[in-house]
Amino acid sequence: MRYIFGIDVGGTTIKAGLFEESGKLLKKWSIPTRKGENGALIYDDIAAEVTKAMAEAGIPKEDVLGVGLTMPGPVYEDGCLGACANLSVKGGDPGKEISGRLSGIPSRAENDANAAALGEQKMGAGKGYRSLCMVTLGTGVGGGIILKGTVVVGKHGTGGEIGHIPVMDGEKEHCGCGGSGCCEQYASATGIVRVAKRMAANGDPMIPLDPGKAFQYPESEIAKRGDSLSAKDVCDLARSGDELALRALSFSMEQLAKALAVVAYTADPEAFLIGGGVSAAFDVLEPLLRQKLAGYTTLIDEKDLVILPAKLGNDAGICGAAALFLP
Amino acid sequence: MRYIFGIDVGGTTIKAGLFEESGKLLKKWSIPTRKGENGALIYDDIAAEVTKAMAEAGIPKEDVLGVGLTMPGPVYEDGCLGACANLSVKGGDPGKEISGRLSGIPSRAENDANAAALGEQKMGAGKGYRSLCMVTLGTGVGGGIILKGTVVVGKHGTGGEIGHIPVMDGEKEHCGCGGSGCCEQYASATGIVRVAKRMAANGDPMIPLDPGKAFQYPESEIAKRGDSLSAKDVCDLARSGDELALRALSFSMEQLAKALAVVAYTADPEAFLIGGGVSAAFDVLEPLLRQKLAGYTTLIDEKDLVILPAKLGNDAGICGAAALFLP
Repeated sequence: MRYIFGIDVGGTTIKAGLFEESGKLLKKWSIPTRKGENGALIYDDIAAEVTKAMAEAGIPKEDVLGVGLTMPGPVYEDGCLGACANLSVKGGDPGKEISGRLSGIPSRAENDANAAALGEQKMGAGKGYRSLCMVTLGTGVGGGIILKGTVVVGKHGTGGEIGHIPVMDGEKEHCGCGGSGCCEQYASATGIVRVAKRMAANGDPMIPLDPGKAFQYPESEIAKRGDSLSAKDVCDLARSGDELALRALSFSMEQLAKALAVVAYTADPEAFLIGGGVSAAFDVLEPLLRQKLAGYTTLIDEKDLVILPAKLGNDAGICGAAALFLP
Repeated sequence: MRYIFGIDVGGTTIKAGLFEESGKLLKKWSIPTRKGENGALIYDDIAAEVTKAMAEAGIPKEDVLGVGLTMPGPVYEDGCLGACANLSVKGGDPGKEISGRLSGIPSRAENDANAAALGEQKMGAGKGYRSLCMVTLGTGVGGGIILKGTVVVGKHGTGGEIGHIPVMDGEKEHCGCGGSGCCEQYASATGIVRVAKRMAANGDPMIPLDPGKAFQYPESEIAKRGDSLSAKDVCDLARSGDELALRALSFSMEQLAKALAVVAYTADPEAFLIGGGVSAAFDVLEPLLRQKLAGYTTLIDEKDLVILPAKLGNDAGICGAAALFLP
């Protein structure tokens, strides 16, 4: 039996998983992320955890196929890291760092969203598809594209950066990337809330909130929730027939549809997978998304559009990391 | 010495080229396209031309590496054809048809825009780039994406369909694809003329012409040209400082920039190549396109954006077809 470690490095937590080479998850655990020294503490901690887990399970070095790492920032084709603002780490080759601390056990890093897409393909909802696009609807919108089993990383590490595809003109607020009108500004959890509040305040999803101005729909459920409004609330309200919530969610899904349409007209994958916290409301999101997507991809027969919910949930990170070394 | 035939099948003309395996073009010629019998006449004619050229040049069958074909419609990964409206041909495997008529000489078909991108990579402006995106600005906007030396064909044959990426909301006129707001409606030769006329008529690139309404800028050079206005005219006027033409062209390039931005955030190629008749005005187009593209790709350093004019010109088709068999 051979084994793989899948390590998901996040801004606050490092999640770890021990997998059989079949992809079966044997054990998972997590430790806090220690920032500083440009990542050296993170690499030290990961190496220590892997070493400990190997000792506990009695796994010799030669039975470890590899230690896969996901990083919350751009990872280039050569495995080197761009700037990871969340980790205060920039540059270097995380795989090399880990391998050097583990007597040469193979290790490689991949961007977290790209790895999640690979994980879904090898172990989750994407099984059986050679090419797919996965979007993760969370605080932001992450994206990963797999063509013929390979992650599209790209020259600048921006392959599959679906969250920052420009979809709207005239957006007054800026996106975290510095642009404006990005898909993420409307279709992330934050974006869905933003759109819903704008609808309640101004009856228009493109007019930013003005704290000094009264809401146009003060009696709406959206307005009543105030600052506690979540993307889940908007989805739940839409499901129960709340018209304003439905219009807001429909607008958000239309912006996501535009981004997926351009994926269909550039990479043209076999399937689209929707993951992240927001995808818990897949039953409400999918019909809206499908209808809008079909309208933007007239060259493709609607019945050939495959949209599926991701399966790996909170394990997407460690599974994606392990997928880097799955046979 | 071994040889390759590159055959560019168009709606009115079939262009043929005989190449050395080095990529050197030895001879080119063309014949009219005979439609009917679901392409059988086209395949007969191509086989006859190749046979004749081999006899004339004294090339034995075993010295022909292959006969590459470009077709003006979707070609799937298995080499089979979708619907080619221009040829009244649908389905079948053109490569198999040709190979069957030429005693088994290898033959394969590719979509024309995809093949042009491959041709530029192997023989033209894309030499030295492993990945690139080529857009052809002609009557329409064609596109092809190459990643690691391979054409991105896609599940539905819509890989690299850059002309039909939706870039504008609120477009009143329909695109040939059935959608509206496609890149092609603004950045093709036809699109550039459309935008310029709308500017002269309404001072707004999004308001369609109304034949019953007087032009807002009847004294403008654009209005004066009337129906003879060409995309080249708009580019020439912009180059000479005509303000209305410059605003129109700037709008057109902004729409192309949006489409290329999404390519940068999906496939993220090393370089963008601009070809087709309109690219003769590359000196005027490129600064506008670069400025707009940089605005939409804030995650990429502007100095890393490579935009080049295509080189193969009218030979793009036969070169692209031959590129399918270049070693």
